[in-house]
Amino acid sequence: MTKKLKFGIIGYGFMGQTHGETIQRLDYAELVAVCDTNEAQFEFAPEGVKTHTSADELLANSDINTVIIAVPNQLHLEMVIKAAAAKKDIICEKPLGMTGQEVKKMIAVTEGVVRFTTHHQRRWDHDYRVAKEVYEAGTLGEVYTIKSALYGFNGNMHDWHIYPECGGGMLYDWGVHLIDQILWLVPAKLKTIYAHVNNVVNEQVDDYFNIQLYFENGVNAQIELGTYFLNSSDNWFERHWFLGGNKGSAKIDGFNPVGEITRTSELLSNVPGQITMTHAGPTRSFGPAPAGRILVEELPKVEVNHQMFFDNYYAFTQGQQALVVKPSETLRLMEVLDAIRVAAKYNQSIHFE
Amino acid sequence: MTKKLKFGIIGYGFMGQTHGETIQRLDYAELVAVCDTNEAQFEFAPEGVKTHTSADELLANSDINTVIIAVPNQLHLEMVIKAAAAKKDIICEKPLGMTGQEVKKMIAVTEGVVRFTTHHQRRWDHDYRVAKEVYEAGTLGEVYTIKSALYGFNGNMHDWHIYPECGGGMLYDWGVHLIDQILWLVPAKLKTIYAHVNNVVNEQVDDYFNIQLYFENGVNAQIELGTYFLNSSDNWFERHWFLGGNKGSAKIDGFNPVGEITRTSELLSNVPGQITMTHAGPTRSFGPAPAGRILVEELPKVEVNHQMFFDNYYAFTQGQQALVVKPSETLRLMEVLDAIRVAAKYNQSIHFE
Repeated sequence: MTKKLKFGIIGYGFMGQTHGETIQRLDYAELVAVCDTNEAQFEFAPEGVKTHTSADELLANSDINTVIIAVPNQLHLEMVIKAAAAKKDIICEKPLGMTGQEVKKMIAVTEGVVRFTTHHQRRWDHDYRVAKEVYEAGTLGEVYTIKSALYGFNGNMHDWHIYPECGGGMLYDWGVHLIDQILWLVPAKLKTIYAHVNNVVNEQVDDYFNIQLYFENGVNAQIELGTYFLNSSDNWFERHWFLGGNKGSAKIDGFNPVGEITRTSELLSNVPGQITMTHAGPTRSFGPAPAGRILVEELPKVEVNHQMFFDNYYAFTQGQQALVVKPSETLRLMEVLDAIRVAAKYNQSIHFE
Repeated sequence: MTKKLKFGIIGYGFMGQTHGETIQRLDYAELVAVCDTNEAQFEFAPEGVKTHTSADELLANSDINTVIIAVPNQLHLEMVIKAAAAKKDIICEKPLGMTGQEVKKMIAVTEGVVRFTTHHQRRWDHDYRVAKEVYEAGTLGEVYTIKSALYGFNGNMHDWHIYPECGGGMLYDWGVHLIDQILWLVPAKLKTIYAHVNNVVNEQVDDYFNIQLYFENGVNAQIELGTYFLNSSDNWFERHWFLGGNKGSAKIDGFNPVGEITRTSELLSNVPGQITMTHAGPTRSFGPAPAGRILVEELPKVEVNHQMFFDNYYAFTQGQQALVVKPSETLRLMEVLDAIRVAAKYNQSIHFE
C-alpha cells in the first residue's frame, strides 16, 4: 500500500528551502507546511504550502506524516523530541546532534516510535561513490591508506556557522560528511583516532582539520579539510581522493570526478644475498619511471545524485529497501566526532573500538 | 692554518664509492685509503688510493685524519667506536645508529675527542631549501601544517635495505632524511608523534609510512612516503611539499622544484547577526574560485648542492663556520625515529618533548 510522504519542514533557511525545492520534484512526496521563527523566509515558500512561526503549530497538523528538521544544529535535539512526541517520522539535518550523548537521547525517543534518519546525502556524492566502487572491487589488493581531502579559498565560514553556540565550524559542516563517508566505506572496527583541529582564519570556529582513522583491517584513512588551503591548479578547491593498495593506487579528483587507477608493469627485483649494488647501474628508488612501467586504467562509471537519499528513504517506508542512513551509524559517527575533539584538544590518540 | 681533509672510507659500496667520487672534486680534500670486506669493490677505487680489507688496517694509517663510515647501518656503532679510539675525525652515513641509545654511545666516545657529524646532505636538497626559505621568510603568516611527501613505483627495496638486521626499510633510508629536514626546519619543541608504518610490498621491511609531528609552535608536520604509491601525473615520483599558513600557502614539487606561493585577494565576508543566507545567492564554501581571487607569487630562488655538506664540514674544521649537522640534533632525530616505531607498533601517539 503506497503512502505519499507528506512533509513539514522545520527551519526554512537555506537547507530548509533546498529541501522544499527537492520535494517539489518527487512524485512520492508533497510539501504540506513549513515553519520558521523568521517570517521573512516565507516569501520563498511554494504556493499553497502552509507557513507557521512555531514548530508546535506545524507538528499539530495531522496531514503531515514526516518532518525535515533543518534548524541550526543546537536545536536538533529539542525538535527531534517534539516531532517524535507528535508521532511524525523524522529526517534530521546533519550533524544530527551536537554530541554522541544528544544522539543517544534522540534514538531513545524515536526507536520503535517513529522512523528516524539523518540527511547524509553525501553518501551519494559522485566522487565518493567512484572511490567506494574502486575500494569494494578489491582490485587495489590490500588497501593501506585512503586519503580524502577538500580545500577552500574563502577562509571564513558563512551564516550561523561562524557561531560555536549554533554548532558552527567545519567539523560540524563538512566534517561529518567526510567522516561518515569513510565509516560507511570501511567495514571494520575503528581502532584509533588522531586529529588536529585548528582555527586558521576564523576566530571562534574550526576551519582546518586533519583526521587519522586507523581501522582494524589495516586501512589508515586520512581526512583533511581547510577553508584556506590554496593553490592555483585545476579543481584544487574540489574533492581529492587517493586510495593506496598493494596491487595498485587510485586517484579521484573533483566533484565531477576525473582520475585513474594506476599499477606498474613490474616491481624492482632484488637478488637476495647479493648485498652490493653495482657501480655501473644503481636502480633509483624514486625519480621518473621508465617508459611503459606505469599502467593506467579508467575509473569505474557511477551514476548517482542526492535525490537518491530521498528515494531510499521512501522505498524504506514502503518496505522495499533497507534504510541506508541508520541511526546507529550516525551515533557512531557523532561519537567519532566527540573523540576527534578530545584527540585534538589534548594532542593524544584515542583508542575507539 | 689550513689543513687538508685526508680521508679514509670505511665501506666501499654504493655510498662509499659516491663519497670517493665527491672527494676527488674537493680541493680541500684527498682520498688516502678505502676498505671493504668485499675486495671486488676495489676495482672502483681511484688510482693511488690504498685498499684494505679491514677497518683496523685503514685506521692504523697515520696519513688519514678523517674517516667516512659507509658500512651497512648495523655496523655504524662499532666503526664509530674504533675510529674514535684511533683519533680520526668521523663523518658517518645515516641513519647514524639503529637507535637513539646507539647514538648516545657514539656521542660518549667522540665528544671532546674527535670531530663527529652525520652525512645529512639532504639538508642541502633544492626542494627542501625552497620550502625552508618560504617558511623562514614568514610571509605565510602562522604556519599550521607542513606536508612533505615522496612516492615511488618500485615497490621493493634494493640491496641490503631488504634486510631488517642491516637496518633496512624506508624509515632508515629516506625516513631519517625527511624527518631531519622537518626537525631542522621547525624551531620548536616536538610535542606529539603519531605514525603508521607498513610493509606494503616488502615482506620484512617498511616501505610506507605516514608520520605526524606536532610542534609546540602550532605546526603539524605530515611526512608520507611510499615505494608503491602510484599516479601517472608529472613529477609524481619526486618530492612534494605543501605549507599552509593563515596568510597564504606554498606548493613545491619535484627534485628540481616548481610551484608557487598562493594567496587570495579577499576572504568570504559575513555580517555578524545576519544568520540566514539569502535564497538568491548562497556563497559556496568550495568549488571554483571567482576570477581574480587567487593570487600567485613565484617561489624564491635558491642555489644549493650536496657538496655544501662537505664545504661546511671543512669550514668547521678550519674554525670558520659552525657545524651544520650536530650530533645532538642527530640524537634527537634518532629518538624521534624510536618513538615513531613505538607509536606505529601500538597505534598510539607519543608525547615527546
